[in-house]
Amino acid sequence: MTPTRLITRAIRRPRSIIPPLRRPVLLRLGGQRSNTTDSRERPTATATPTDSRKKERDNRFAKLTPEDVAHFRSICSVLSAESDEIEAFNTDWMRKYRGQARLVLKPKSTADVSEILKYCNSRSLAVVPQGGNTGLVGGSVPVYDEIVISMNAINSIRSFDPVSGILICDAGVVLETADNYLADQGHIFPLDLGAKGSCHIGGNVATNAGGLRLLRYGSLHGTVLGVEAVLPDGTILDDLSTLRKNNTGYDLKQLFIGSEGTIGIITAVSIICPSRPSAQNVAFFAVNTFEKVQEAFIRAKRELGEILSAFELMDDTSQRCVAQVTGKKRPLEGEETKFYVLVETSGSNKEHDDEKLEKYLMASMEDETIADGVLAQDETQARNLWSWREGIPEVCGHWGGVYKYDVSIPLKELYSLVEDVKARLIEHGLLGEDKPVVDVLGFGHIGDGNLHLNVPVRSYDRCVEEALEPFIYEWIEKRSGSISAEHGLGVAKREYVQYSRGETALGVMRSLKNHFDPVRPASPIPTQHHIAHALAERNHEPIQIHQNINPEF
Amino acid sequence: MTPTRLITRAIRRPRSIIPPLRRPVLLRLGGQRSNTTDSRERPTATATPTDSRKKERDNRFAKLTPEDVAHFRSICSVLSAESDEIEAFNTDWMRKYRGQARLVLKPKSTADVSEILKYCNSRSLAVVPQGGNTGLVGGSVPVYDEIVISMNAINSIRSFDPVSGILICDAGVVLETADNYLADQGHIFPLDLGAKGSCHIGGNVATNAGGLRLLRYGSLHGTVLGVEAVLPDGTILDDLSTLRKNNTGYDLKQLFIGSEGTIGIITAVSIICPSRPSAQNVAFFAVNTFEKVQEAFIRAKRELGEILSAFELMDDTSQRCVAQVTGKKRPLEGEETKFYVLVETSGSNKEHDDEKLEKYLMASMEDETIADGVLAQDETQARNLWSWREGIPEVCGHWGGVYKYDVSIPLKELYSLVEDVKARLIEHGLLGEDKPVVDVLGFGHIGDGNLHLNVPVRSYDRCVEEALEPFIYEWIEKRSGSISAEHGLGVAKREYVQYSRGETALGVMRSLKNHFDPVRPASPIPTQHHIAHALAERNHEPIQIHQNINPEF
Repeated sequence: MTPTRLITRAIRRPRSIIPPLRRPVLLRLGGQRSNTTDSRERPTATATPTDSRKKERDNRFAKLTPEDVAHFRSICSVLSAESDEIEAFNTDWMRKYRGQARLVLKPKSTADVSEILKYCNSRSLAVVPQGGNTGLVGGSVPVYDEIVISMNAINSIRSFDPVSGILICDAGVVLETADNYLADQGHIFPLDLGAKGSCHIGGNVATNAGGLRLLRYGSLHGTVLGVEAVLPDGTILDDLSTLRKNNTGYDLKQLFIGSEGTIGIITAVSIICPSRPSAQNVAFFAVNTFEKVQEAFIRAKRELGEILSAFELMDDTSQRCVAQVTGKKRPLEGEETKFYVLVETSGSNKEHDDEKLEKYLMASMEDETIADGVLAQDETQARNLWSWREGIPEVCGHWGGVYKYDVSIPLKELYSLVEDVKARLIEHGLLGEDKPVVDVLGFGHIGDGNLHLNVPVRSYDRCVEEALEPFIYEWIEKRSGSISAEHGLGVAKREYVQYSRGETALGVMRSLKNHFDPVRPASPIPTQHHIAHALAERNHEPIQIHQNINPEF
Repeated sequence: MTPTRLITRAIRRPRSIIPPLRRPVLLRLGGQRSNTTDSRERPTATATPTDSRKKERDNRFAKLTPEDVAHFRSICSVLSAESDEIEAFNTDWMRKYRGQARLVLKPKSTADVSEILKYCNSRSLAVVPQGGNTGLVGGSVPVYDEIVISMNAINSIRSFDPVSGILICDAGVVLETADNYLADQGHIFPLDLGAKGSCHIGGNVATNAGGLRLLRYGSLHGTVLGVEAVLPDGTILDDLSTLRKNNTGYDLKQLFIGSEGTIGIITAVSIICPSRPSAQNVAFFAVNTFEKVQEAFIRAKRELGEILSAFELMDDTSQRCVAQVTGKKRPLEGEETKFYVLVETSGSNKEHDDEKLEKYLMASMEDETIADGVLAQDETQARNLWSWREGIPEVCGHWGGVYKYDVSIPLKELYSLVEDVKARLIEHGLLGEDKPVVDVLGFGHIGDGNLHLNVPVRSYDRCVEEALEPFIYEWIEKRSGSISAEHGLGVAKREYVQYSRGETALGVMRSLKNHFDPVRPASPIPTQHHIAHALAERNHEPIQIHQNINPEF
């Protein structure tokens, strides 16, 4: 980056160089890439969430026999119950969900996955596909004794065409590996998220990960061109097109994007990758009201338009938490405002981008849309500004535990949820210095209408849970929002899907699941455990398994 | 636009102001919008295509009775066989397909459509939904005596949120009407095509229209946020989300995008609309080889990156045809080259865009990637340059008829199809001054890997057809291309879908169609005529109806 640049009096330099908390890669062109797993320490939870929804194992599923294990050994390498390594496959990253799988399968090819599923289907053995296991809703770990199908060993980059920018890779390729590979070719993976050092591309697609730059590169439904998947009965569906346009019948791959592994296991993905932007800028500014945040967003879309790659909101509470836990000085001096915004631009011409961003900030200061702001002068400063956004999830666990909600709400009312939840917890006498709840805070991707509501607590408490749920879900339902913006349903949200999808839609989903994986109540032969459980237990919600989740929460 | 600008010696001004042929709207900010229907005169075909694939009516469908008509009159306004107006609903825009519908229904609401389909389903009456009827593959007109369900009267813009840019509108809203409405709000519809003055948004979504700026705004699978659709049994599926992120189960709307009306009729759409770019530039340049076209494309992606909105290819034959038919002088003087490229940029800062595009052209001239080029100096010149691309489809019909193929091919081999087809027609003695075939030409959207192969003929001829098909389909199959990039299958391509989709994919499609619209061979109760016909006649291909098609062919 340019070492110096024109900064107006109004827009000041960052006060200090803040050490990065969790920012994996900000300016990746030619820079060293850190692995997010390094900094993704597990939360030091001293409290355990209550699990009032524990259910019995569905005994329509067969129990694993020595003959089954012997058969699987003839297909691929396995980890059995005796192995110490099996623990890591039984627990999610948050240590919130734990299964009792006694077998982990490590197929090396699509054909292996096909053989495995075919056999499991015939034996009514329950399975759970697992990618990078970075999910947050308990979708990538077993809940009972399901067989884990790990995608770790199916991890080749199959091809890349530098003219069209189309990459074909196996499901088990780690997102960062793919992005590093693309960087060498002057391209960028059109998805970026905090877990990129661990999460798999197959899992990203299976869970329709959103991440940090959806605003710029759009959703995976638009960028994924094809998938190869193995259906529950072992059939290999080759829909691995490398064509941007192909209107020859139903776009089947779309069904697998976001279906969380419930109708098949994705084994390969074809995706269109844009040219890597050569310039990246970051600004951080203070805003007094949520109305002004919206005004700043409208102006950013208009004036930064094609180079706008992130527009992130952080409330003051979240910033105070980061400052308190990390002991760092905040980027902006002076009076605290209620909101802070991080704007990132990515473009092909540094000078043009600088000019656009400076003009944007000046105009916003002049008409008082924003109260104060800083512009990063180099990559270190940019990373530091990002750390005030990306550090939030980690510091929220500081006091013992945290309740997390990843929701979509029409923009106008997006922040009201934080205020209403806070008021409710105060009203219930649950928030305060000697109370279970530390505070209520909100942050997220304004550009996507995606709010992360976090409630840090000193201990997990049934009273807090009862105050939060179903209140939050009902609140969201009233505004036609989504109870899961980007994390998916997993086991955490399976009971609440009806707050976000209508009866007809749920009926169609259920019928599609039965169609792909015919679980008959009389004599079910399911391969995907959670689904069958859910279908047996309740009527509303057929989606429970996924491979991997975006932890940008 | 700026009246003057720095043009280097190497990049010359356009030689003449060429009257626009078919360009509807190039610079739409504040400009007057022309209606493409005005200039979309029907081709003056003196020859009639042979239809060797005519099939018998499927008599599992009931025949319309006076009681049926009376019932429909109780639901909505109707056009009966006596009306002169019915002819327009029985014929497609190309006058290539003609049905014998004796009834056109004009529902005014989603509830009306629901009532209609429910009744048709119970009576086994065949129907065909019809949008703007601008399709090119015979998907929007009846083939036998199907009832036409016209979406013309369901045409309100329901809402627009200027903060998020999300538009909700009825299926029958004309694309240009929506775009004009959005222009007033500083936004743009993320789809643009030649038929915008007639085609419906519902039809665009039902056929997954690609159009001119897919390169910039991506596919409808990424921009459409929700659909409301009526299923074959009359059930209303409300999946009209306005959320950019909503990972709560299967993304059902995706199934309807591009399914050509075969599993339901789309009645409303929710879509995210970007800010309208304030600056637009057009350059037109000559390139000697297809390798250099690819080099120019790679550089355009890298250097124009975020502002690149079109990269269109025209071969020399196509340009000679336009010159010959229109009598206009070509934009570039001097030696003719084999290829011509039109590049368009759209951005938020005119000066920046000018600088980027000029730099791009200079560098391309210097290293001889391009042979010669011009930059439009104002909107008129920009329109004129576009006319050399957009005029091609119209002039191709000049000699009597034209065979048209809309295909996707991996970029490296994209143009070889034109060369191979031409060689084959010459070899078969079919091309020449006293032969049926005038010439073979290619043009299209390089950025999308989408080639339009046109074969202008003096008369339609069985020998030409036999030389072209299945040769072209087999050629495409060998390269894993698509036999229908953006036009869909309709009735024209239904017999060839197996060239682009595998057996397993076709099996899944067929099963999904049966699932949504259970046509049992023993006692079928279909609502969508073509499908049932196809299912009865052959095994491969379940997709036949659509509402509307992009005519950018």
